Amino acid sequence: LKDIFIHPTALVETDQIGAGTSIWAYAHIMRGAAIGENCNVGDHCFIERGAVIGNNVTVKNGNMIWEGVTLEDGVFVGPHAFFTNDLYPRSARHPTVNHRAANHDWLVTTRVCEGASLGAGAVIRGGITIGAFAMVGAGAVVTRDVPSHGLVLGNPARLRGWVCRCGLPLSLLPGDAARCKCQLVYKVTDDGVWLIPDQAESFISG
Amino acid sequence: LKDIFIHPTALVETDQIGAGTSIWAYAHIMRGAAIGENCNVGDHCFIERGAVIGNNVTVKNGNMIWEGVTLEDGVFVGPHAFFTNDLYPRSARHPTVNHRAANHDWLVTTRVCEGASLGAGAVIRGGITIGAFAMVGAGAVVTRDVPSHGLVLGNPARLRGWVCRCGLPLSLLPGDAARCKCQLVYKVTDDGVWLIPDQAESFISG
Amino acid sequence: LKDIFIHPTALVETDQIGAGTSIWAYAHIMRGAAIGENCNVGDHCFIERGAVIGNNVTVKNGNMIWEGVTLEDGVFVGPHAFFTNDLYPRSARHPTVNHRAANHDWLVTTRVCEGASLGAGAVIRGGITIGAFAMVGAGAVVTRDVPSHGLVLGNPARLRGWVCRCGLPLSLLPGDAARCKCQLVYKVTDDGVWLIPDQAESFISG
Repeated sequence: LKDIFIHPTALVETDQIGAGTSIWAYAHIMRGAAIGENCNVGDHCFIERGAVIGNNVTVKNGNMIWEGVTLEDGVFVGPHAFFTNDLYPRSARHPTVNHRAANHDWLVTTRVCEGASLGAGAVIRGGITIGAFAMVGAGAVVTRDVPSHGLVLGNPARLRGWVCRCGLPLSLLPGDAARCKCQLVYKVTDDGVWLIPDQAESFISG
Repeated sequence: LKDIFIHPTALVETDQIGAGTSIWAYAHIMRGAAIGENCNVGDHCFIERGAVIGNNVTVKNGNMIWEGVTLEDGVFVGPHAFFTNDLYPRSARHPTVNHRAANHDWLVTTRVCEGASLGAGAVIRGGITIGAFAMVGAGAVVTRDVPSHGLVLGNPARLRGWVCRCGLPLSLLPGDAARCKCQLVYKVTDDGVWLIPDQAESFISG
Repeated sequence: LKDIFIHPTALVETDQIGAGTSIWAYAHIMRGAAIGENCNVGDHCFIERGAVIGNNVTVKNGNMIWEGVTLEDGVFVGPHAFFTNDLYPRSARHPTVNHRAANHDWLVTTRVCEGASLGAGAVIRGGITIGAFAMVGAGAVVTRDVPSHGLVLGNPARLRGWVCRCGLPLSLLPGDAARCKCQLVYKVTDDGVWLIPDQAESFISG
C-alpha cells in the first residue's frame, strides 16, 4: 500500500510521508515535515520542517507550507496561497533588527480545519483558524478566524455566505435551516451552520 | 525556423510547441498542453494538459496555466498571476467531499483575448473573459468580464479607464473619441472603446 | 569568510554574490544580478540581471526580483511578493503592441530601503519607494510611496500605523513621541516618525 510517488525532480528530505501520497516536480519537502496519506503536493511546493499535513489533502502548485501551519484532513489549498507565521517579520540577519530572532516568540500558528478550501492566491495571516469546510475565495486576505462552512471574500476578507461540505453555496430556508443543491441540510445558528446528522450517507460520501 | 529553446532544467512533455518559443528554467509543460509560436514561458511556470496558448504570448515567471484557460495571441501574463478553473474547489481526495469529482462539471473556462495584459499577482476567477487589449492591474481580483481595452484595478476589480493597444492609458477627447500618446484614436461607445480603422500602420506595428 | 552556499539544484550565473550568502533549491540567479553579503535567497526565487540586493537581506521563497528593483541592507521580502517594473506591460512579441519595446522607457524602478519588510504576497507597483524600516502587510497592493517606519495594509494599501526597527507596532505617547515594546522611542512629525538618537545600543543591536 505504501505507494508514494516522488517526481524525479522533487527533493524529499522527510521520511514522514503517508501511503498513496504524490509529490510533484520541483517540490521540496524538508526534513521534519509531516505529510499524511493519500495527499497530492503539486509542482514547485515547499513544505517546511514543522509543517503538519493530514490525510487526503490537496496542495496545489506553488504553495509554501511553513512551520506552524497545520492542514487537517481533506483540506484543499489552491495554487499559490500564502501562509505566514510571523506578524511582524524582519530580516533576522540585519544587525539592528535581529533582537527578536534569538527566541521563538515570533512564531504564530495557523490551523486549517477538516475539509476547508483556500482559493488561489489567498493570503492567510498568521494566527488564524479556518473552520471545517470553510471556503476562502481566490485572492482574499484573511485577517480573522473563519467559522465552519463560512465563505469569505475580499481584502480584508468578510463573511459572505455559507458553503456545503461539497463546496457549493447553501440556500437559506425559512426557519433556521439551509440546504445545498446536493440535498444536504444544515441548521443555522448565531454561531454558524451545522450539518444536521443522520442524513443519507450516500449524499455525503457518494 | 523551428528553433524552440528548452532550458536544460525544464520539463517539456508536450510536442505541441510552436517555432521560436522559449521555455525557461524549472518550467513544466504537461503532455496535452498547446503553446503557439514565438512565445516566452518564464522560469517556474506550470502549463497543464488542456491549456491553450496562442502565438507571441509572454508568460512571465511562476505562472500556472490550467486546463480550461485559453490565452490568445499576444497576451501578456505578468509574474505569478492566478488562474482558477473551479469556483467551489474541494480536495477531491477527501471521502466526504468528493462527490463532485466523479464528473467534470466543476470545470469553468477562462479566456484572455488578443493582446490583453494581466499584471503581477492578478487573480482571475474561473469563467471570466478578459477582452482584447484589456489591462488588469497588479494584484487585482477579477470577478467579472473585462471589456476590450478596459483597465481594471482593485479587489474586486473595477473598471477605471481605458488603455491603448500599446498599453498606455487613453485620454478622452470632446465628443466620442479618445486618443493615446502613441497617436492612435479610438471611438468611445456605451459598450467600450474601438480602434478607429485606417490609421497609419506605422503607429500600430512600428 | 567567502562561504557562499549554493544548493545543488540552484542555478547561479552571476559572480556578484557576497560572503556568507545562501541560495536555496531551484533558485535561479541571472548573470548581472548583484547580491550582497550574508543574504538568504529561498527556494524557487528568480533574480534578474540588473537587480541589486544589499547585505543581510532575507528573500523568502518564490520571489522574483526584476531589473530595476533595489533591496537595501537588511530588507525582508516575504514569500511570493510581487515586484513590477513596467506600469503598462504588453507582450513585446505581439506585432501590434511591440512599439514600446524598442527602447527602454518602460522600465520603472523600485527601491526598498534599509530594514523594510514586505509581507507575503504583497504587490509593489513599479516606481515606488518603500521607506526604511517600513512594513507592508501580507497581501497589500502598494501604489504610493511608503514613509519610513510606516505600516501599510489593504488594496490599495493605506497607512495604518507605525512600526519600530524591530517590527513591532509603535504606541503613540502624549506629545510628539511614540514608543515600542522593545523600549526604543521615536519622534512623531508630520512627515513620519524618527528614531531618537543616543538610545542604548543594546536595544538596537541586542
